[in-house]
Formats: sequence, structure tokens, C-alpha cells
Amino acid sequence: MIPTLKVKPISQLLKLENYIINHSCDIEHWFRNQWKKYQPPFYASVDLRNSGFKLAPVDTNLFPAGFNNLCETFLPLSIQAASVAIEKICPEAKKVMIIAESHTRNIFYLKNIYALSEILKNSGLEVKIGTIDPEINERLSLIVGENMTIEIEPITREGDYVSIMMGKEVSYQPCAIILNNDLSGGEPEILKGIKQNLIPPLSAGWHKRRKSDHFTQYNKVVDEFSQFTNIDPWLINPYFEKLDNMNFQERKGENELASIASNMLENINKKYKEYNITQEAYVVVKANAGTYGMGIMIIKNSEDVLNLNRKMRKKMSVIKGGGVVTEVIIQEGIHTEESINQSVAEPVIYMIDRFVVGGFFRVHTNKEKDENLNSPGMHFIPQPFETSCIMPDQGRPCDDEANRFYAYGVIARLALIAAARELQE
Amino acid sequence: MIPTLKVKPISQLLKLENYIINHSCDIEHWFRNQWKKYQPPFYASVDLRNSGFKLAPVDTNLFPAGFNNLCETFLPLSIQAASVAIEKICPEAKKVMIIAESHTRNIFYLKNIYALSEILKNSGLEVKIGTIDPEINERLSLIVGENMTIEIEPITREGDYVSIMMGKEVSYQPCAIILNNDLSGGEPEILKGIKQNLIPPLSAGWHKRRKSDHFTQYNKVVDEFSQFTNIDPWLINPYFEKLDNMNFQERKGENELASIASNMLENINKKYKEYNITQEAYVVVKANAGTYGMGIMIIKNSEDVLNLNRKMRKKMSVIKGGGVVTEVIIQEGIHTEESINQSVAEPVIYMIDRFVVGGFFRVHTNKEKDENLNSPGMHFIPQPFETSCIMPDQGRPCDDEANRFYAYGVIARLALIAAARELQE
Repeated sequence: MIPTLKVKPISQLLKLENYIINHSCDIEHWFRNQWKKYQPPFYASVDLRNSGFKLAPVDTNLFPAGFNNLCETFLPLSIQAASVAIEKICPEAKKVMIIAESHTRNIFYLKNIYALSEILKNSGLEVKIGTIDPEINERLSLIVGENMTIEIEPITREGDYVSIMMGKEVSYQPCAIILNNDLSGGEPEILKGIKQNLIPPLSAGWHKRRKSDHFTQYNKVVDEFSQFTNIDPWLINPYFEKLDNMNFQERKGENELASIASNMLENINKKYKEYNITQEAYVVVKANAGTYGMGIMIIKNSEDVLNLNRKMRKKMSVIKGGGVVTEVIIQEGIHTEESINQSVAEPVIYMIDRFVVGGFFRVHTNKEKDENLNSPGMHFIPQPFETSCIMPDQGRPCDDEANRFYAYGVIARLALIAAARELQE
Repeated sequence: MIPTLKVKPISQLLKLENYIINHSCDIEHWFRNQWKKYQPPFYASVDLRNSGFKLAPVDTNLFPAGFNNLCETFLPLSIQAASVAIEKICPEAKKVMIIAESHTRNIFYLKNIYALSEILKNSGLEVKIGTIDPEINERLSLIVGENMTIEIEPITREGDYVSIMMGKEVSYQPCAIILNNDLSGGEPEILKGIKQNLIPPLSAGWHKRRKSDHFTQYNKVVDEFSQFTNIDPWLINPYFEKLDNMNFQERKGENELASIASNMLENINKKYKEYNITQEAYVVVKANAGTYGMGIMIIKNSEDVLNLNRKMRKKMSVIKGGGVVTEVIIQEGIHTEESINQSVAEPVIYMIDRFVVGGFFRVHTNKEKDENLNSPGMHFIPQPFETSCIMPDQGRPCDDEANRFYAYGVIARLALIAAARELQE
């Protein structure tokens, strides 16, 4: 099922989508040149939003956790892409270990780990799943579905290597370690200085990574891309600013935040006027190192910032892993205008190495189009894409399913280049 | 629809298939190491035969012409593989040209060209189709299906480059040329010494290539593969010998041929005895540089050779492109024991770069299991594989569809390594 766009895309966005469909050769050639210069991350997912007048990434995840939500038909694409990635990063690898997040009671996350390990197994690797959670000190066997079990095992450090103990004297020592743990809790002691290949590198973890660095790179990528497409970069790029030294609990930095938000709203409104957009502008404040949809706030009026109540301030203060928020980014909000059965939906694109391997729609049945959809709850219903995102059809209109998804894949890959440059810095 | 194997596989073959399924990690690791040493051909197809006691390639085609017969669902796999191949061989390529065979009235071949050009277009290349047929001197527009047209255009030499004239002064000069013409007619003048990338290289053409070179390389590949699988190499390798200086019309070389056939039949019968096989042994005589199923003869008794009638001698003398057969290979015949609706079937596996991208069954409704199925006629009904050949399922029996096709993909890739080494010689 493909969501409907509630609004008719403005002519500028249609022009861009048309350009993308009809210039896929030039675009793919441009991408090939980028990948000659930058090593793509092992994997990534990108949250996109399509407002009918703007199509842009709002978040890029280097520890994607929704492989279970991809359409099974396209699993071979992931397998092939993974074998390319492995061959490039460590061709000698035979045994790998996935380091999972700690939440072993989240069945959706476990299904993701299962799906990811199946992809790696099918690309010809031996796979075991390790955990760095100090509270797990023996093998956990977890049922994730019919005939689907995963085993999560504590890892041990032996000299410069980590391994999983298989018996008293036998250990499973992987050649490469695939991190599916975003390291929000900091760089784990047990992984520091190990000689095995860490994929992605430790520096990709949220203990170090900053959204603002990503979007700084994204700005540059979009500028280059816009030069040859000759489009207004704003159509695919949300404004953003970063602000350090915030302390929501102590009400430190509120004035600066209000001022940045106010300026940004003004700039957005200028653009809205230019394109005859009548929507209400808004900005999103996010923890600069946050994830899991925590530490996120919507602002439609700069006074909102000064009127934060205690509950809101508390909510903004803490992110996953218990860290205190002191840096935020303020990002232009993009109304998602896609919906499935009257529920708002936003596309999430999955990539392995430089290849788009699929995607799904994150659907919330009780959220509005200007709200954060990445929030926990039973109303999150992923819808896998039923096309592969890699085949534009130049003979058909640009809002045709295959074509729209191809355009999504292109924008997601722009964010992927930004991530590649970010990791290379 | 998946063919049934009419006979129960012998325990040795089951053991091999089981080994392949259960050691997919070791096998893929072994392949990764091979591809570090050898550059795979841009594309290839391998004809396999499964007799229930033997599973082996009988022909490897470096100019595959059945892309139209692959299952559409897995088209994205081909696209992804093609983009890997292009990126490696000539990352700068933007425009390519496919050089097609001359038979522009063969609708099946034209559909293949259409499918191949779609794969390349979707991997981000501009594609035009050229011909070296001197009788075609203007653009041909050919309808190959509903809303499917291809244009075949004569090519022009300009200095060290070939191109297609688009108007009086405008020419389309490709960065790379994909040969889908097997050059049976010899190395074309117009392509000699050109500076564009030729994929595969001219040396892959049948004017130069020899089946015996391929199977000499295949012998070595199988020996290495058998060492670590610890199986009898005969299970996946047909005996072969080559014979030069034949002349069927002048009855030259008949005695040598009879003697080789006689020895080979004896060796096959020894193996049949070892494995309690009650089938009648046979050998196949093929033109060493032949293709299209021309110049092929079945021998069950060495006296057959001495009793060739005039018609048979004539048939064996000429191959595609009008060449005279002077070199043959004598190859152990493998009974195909697969059938679809009572018709014999043999699997054909398609590869792009080092990736299996699909396959189909060549089905003949009026041929027997020991006959050559690669013969023209309306009774050739391809059946696309409905699994991707890249996902073994270790929890299921080895004759499960996905697993059998994975094993086919492994054997086909052994032939692919042989082809890679052959081109590197």
C-alpha cells in the first residue's frame, strides 16, 4: 500500500522530481564520482519527509534498526549489497559479531537483529550476536517469531580482541564487528583499542556524533547537487542552526534558543511566501546527539520557548542512555503530507554500502503532520515499500510509485554522502 | 514452477549438496578470495545439467542472450550487480553502447537486448544499441513487445573511437562498449584497436575463445574446490578431451575421434560402476569454438563416429558465422533428469560480475534427456527461477527449491572463476 500525498506538490517540487527521474543517468554518474572519493557507511537509514513543497531528510541513522520492516522480496538486494560492503571493508572476514542494543525485551528490535543477522549469514558470513550490557552475563535465547530464535551473548575481552566464550576454552573470535548499538551511553571500555574491524567505526556513535555535523555536510552536498540540477536547494534541505551550552533544567540558553527559532521561522515564512505556501511554519528542537525520538520539541512561535513548563524542560533534558542535553539543533520543520488510511506516514530509506536496499513508511495513527513520528507506542505501523527504489520509469509520471520511490532513494543517498563525509572528517 | 528430478539423487551428490548448503560461509569466503585474485567477466551464463548423480556445467557463455527470461522480481539484483561491475571496470562511464548480434528478426534475441539495455539504464547509464552488421546502414526501429521498442543503429569509426551518428554532425560516443555479439564471424575491423573500453574484451569472442581452454581452467578450479569440500571432483566435472586438425567433410581425424570417444566411454562406465549407475554413458562432440548449439553430435558408441553419414558430417562441419570446424572437444554427456510437465529441462544460471542474478530452465518438449537442448525451435520454453539463487536455507532439506538453486549458483560460479582465469591468461 502506497500512501497518498494529501496536497498537490507545488510546481517547483514536481520540477525537481521530474528532473530526478529524467536525469537518472547524470545523477547516478554523479553518485559514482562521489563514491570514488568517499567510503559509504556500512549501513544507514534516512528519515525523509515530503510536504508536497519540500522533500528532505530529517535524520540519518548510522545504526539502523528496522531491517525487519523491509519487504522480504527485496532481501536478495540487501544480501548482495552486504557482500559488496564486506568484501570492501574486510574481504578476509569469515566470522562477524553484531553488537546489539541492550533492550532485549523490545521484540521489534530483536526482529531487526534477526533480520540483519540473516542478511549477513546469507552474504556468506558466520554471525553471532554479542552484547556489551554489563547486566547480561550469560547467553540469552530469545524467540522472535515462529521458528526464529536469536541468541545474545556477553562478550569477553582477550588482549586486543573481543570474543564470545563458547565453552570453557573455546571462544568465537570474529574478524569484524558490526555495531548495531549507537553508543549513546559512551564509548564502551571493552571495545576501546581493539584490533578487530569495527563497522561503523566507534566515532559514528552518539557519544561523539553530532546532528549538526551531519547537516553541515548535508548543506555542502545539497549545494553541489543543486548546482547541476539547477534547483533551489531549499526544496531538499531544511534550515538548521546549532546551539551549545543549553541547560533546560536551569533555564540556561532559552533566550538564545528563542531568538534562533524566531529568525528561522521568519526565514521559513519568507520562503513560504515565495512559493505561495499557506501552511504554518514550525521548527523542531532536537538534542544534537539524541536519538530514539527523545529530546525533541516542536516550536511554532518563539514565545513557546520562554513558556516551557517544568515537564517539557525535563523531557528536553534527558536523552537515551541518561545523558544530559547541553547541545541542540534547531531544524526547520517539514509537514509530512503523506498518509495511509488517514494516518500520517513518513518514508524511511535503508541503505547498505552505497545501495538503496528498501524502505518502509513509519505510520502513526494518532499523530499530526507536524509532529515527531519517531515516538514509541503501539500505533507505529511500518509499511514496507513494494518497489525497490532503484528503478525509475521515465515513461511514467513522476508521482508514479516507482518514480516517487526512486526520488526518495536519491535524496536519501545525498544524506548518505553527507554521512560518509562526516565519518571521514 | 520448479522441475522435478526424475531420479533420486545418489548419496554422493546429496552429500555434496548438503555440504554446499551447510558450508555456505566457507564457500562464500572461498569465492571472495578467488575474486581478490581474478576479475570476473562483466556477465556470463552457465548451462548446467543435473543427472541425479552429477551436477555440472556443460557450457559457459560470455555473451549471454537470455536476460529477457529472468524473473522480473529479481531485476533489481541485476541492476545492482551491473552498477558494481560498471563502477569497477570504468567508473567514469556515462554513455555505453551494446553491440548486438545481427539476427534482428529473432524476437527472442531482441527481447534480450531490450532487457539488457533496461538493466544498464537502470544502473544509471545512457544506452544505445549498435550493430556491426554491414547490411544495416540505417537506424532500425523494432517493436519487441507492448510499449517496448528498440533502436539498432549502425556504428561509425572516428579515429580510435566508434560512435553512432545522431545527425549530420552530432555523434553518440560511448565511454564503454558492451559486447553482446560473440564475434563468431571474426574480430571486426571496426573494433580493432579502439580506445574505448570493450566489455568483455575482444579475446572473449568465439573467433579466439576455445571451449577446451575453458574446461582446462574449470578442471583446476574444481580440483581446488574439491580439496576443501573433500568430494570426488567427477561429481561436478565432466570429462573432456580436445582434438585438432579434424575435417569432417574430408573424413580426416575420424579414427582419432573414435578412439578418444571410446576411451572416454570406458572411463565414464568405470565411474558408473563405482556409483552403481545403470544409465547408458554417452559423449558429446562439439565444435571447440562453436555456439548456438550448432556443430554438436551425440556418441554412445565409438563406431558411431566411423558411420557418420553425409548429412551428419555436413552438420558437424559448419558453425555460426560460416566457420569451418577443425577443432572439437569431446565431453562426457550428462543426462538431464529434470523435467517440467514431462519435458526435459536444464538450468541456465545468469551472472553479472561475481553475482548470481537469476536463471531459468531451458525446456524442450520434444527432446530426450541425453540430447542437446540448446537448439532452435518453438518448443523451447524458458521458465524463470522463482528464487534468487543466493539464499540457502540451512534449516531445510538440500533439495528444497531455494537450496537446490543455491547449489546451482555455486557450481555456476565455479565455471565463472574458470572463465575469469581463461580471460586473464
